[in-house]
Amino acid sequence: MPAAPEIRILALGRFPEVTPGMDLPALILAAATDVDLTLAPGDILIVTQKIVSKAEGALVDLRTVTPSDLAQRWATAWGKDPRQIEVVLRESKRIVRMGNGVIISETHHGFVCANAAVDASNVAGHDLVSLLPRDSDASAQQIRAALSAALGFDLPVIISDSFGRPWRFGIVNVAVGVAGLAPIIDYRGQTDPHGYLLNASVLAIADELTSAAELIMGKLDGRPVAVVRGYPYTPAEGSVSELILDPARDLFR
Amino acid sequence: MPAAPEIRILALGRFPEVTPGMDLPALILAAATDVDLTLAPGDILIVTQKIVSKAEGALVDLRTVTPSDLAQRWATAWGKDPRQIEVVLRESKRIVRMGNGVIISETHHGFVCANAAVDASNVAGHDLVSLLPRDSDASAQQIRAALSAALGFDLPVIISDSFGRPWRFGIVNVAVGVAGLAPIIDYRGQTDPHGYLLNASVLAIADELTSAAELIMGKLDGRPVAVVRGYPYTPAEGSVSELILDPARDLFR
Repeated sequence: MPAAPEIRILALGRFPEVTPGMDLPALILAAATDVDLTLAPGDILIVTQKIVSKAEGALVDLRTVTPSDLAQRWATAWGKDPRQIEVVLRESKRIVRMGNGVIISETHHGFVCANAAVDASNVAGHDLVSLLPRDSDASAQQIRAALSAALGFDLPVIISDSFGRPWRFGIVNVAVGVAGLAPIIDYRGQTDPHGYLLNASVLAIADELTSAAELIMGKLDGRPVAVVRGYPYTPAEGSVSELILDPARDLFR
Repeated sequence: MPAAPEIRILALGRFPEVTPGMDLPALILAAATDVDLTLAPGDILIVTQKIVSKAEGALVDLRTVTPSDLAQRWATAWGKDPRQIEVVLRESKRIVRMGNGVIISETHHGFVCANAAVDASNVAGHDLVSLLPRDSDASAQQIRAALSAALGFDLPVIISDSFGRPWRFGIVNVAVGVAGLAPIIDYRGQTDPHGYLLNASVLAIADELTSAAELIMGKLDGRPVAVVRGYPYTPAEGSVSELILDPARDLFR
């Protein structure tokens, strides 16, 4: 009798408060050791954006920010901090919608999300907000390179953040940086068991991997890194840009 | 040294071709036995929509469908089957967008998705398309009730389907029916380790659970049911309606 195919999602141990300049790969190895977890070939590492941004110093001290008129008006209308709104505007390449106190904008990476992913949660210091890593693929690649060198095998890395979606309530984890695996699986051109040609089946695997990892991370537990073990990923350089919808095909520009 | 917290995603065995009137709970128990998997308290069952729709007979024989003028024109413009487009229009409460050959519409359940989730893939018979279950929460509840009675403990059930998203390329699994667990976790009002009041953190757990399950199901492997083991869900009656964004708050109506 064959055993049930299985994927495991494992949380590394708790992290110290991450501050700019810290050696994130070293902290990751220590957090694995803390829970007696030996990273192994085939593992995929999922790292929360927040600790990457903190280690890279992708933080803004709001005391250094002078709000523009638009930021000031929006903040007044919706009871927000005008300095934080100004940072949102600065991080935005394009405003997609403004309403209900939320700014949906496109970041310079091409992500469309609420408030340009500028976030005051889980940041030490009441006047600090975190930004997304400047080049989140490069951030993932740096972690991958350092850990792969230390471990002696290639360890793919996905950086995750929690984004809202239109139409559905609640946020889910998605990939914001990818290194070492193909972020999508394209079934187009293959046929199903009935011979039907699949024509719409491109799966956003990297997003599903980060959503799976979120289940073990939680929001309040201080476990910002997880391992997905047993998923047969496709090795590739990979880039989160593969997960961004071609504007020409996007009905919701 | 504490062990790494862990969640397991397990695939049940392969299913026979499901046809209307089949006893899906019995098939699920058999598919668990096939891979020596003993369902246990704390497990969450994720069931692909397609087999639920097939068992319920939520199928349309396109030979019985007369396309409307709109369906005919759209099908001609984009090289589609006008009868299938007619079914999409019938399954739609509201058209959200039409473009690039895709109809984004709101189903009577309140889901916004491509082509009202009408699907010709993985259906036996070239003139058959599948619909979403009429009342997908009730479908989940029926499976939950039958399996819970057979097993002697409560087994929450989520019915999943693959939906596209604006802005991001690729489809991901989401919940379309829920029974036996709270589909969201609301962190609002709680504070992070730095004392910051979380104000936007409502996690769509049921969607993340289905995305995790998709990783083990695949599209071509004939494994339409998975178990998530070790996730500390909140028992509740639950409804997928909790995952539908209040139209008043949706900037993308």
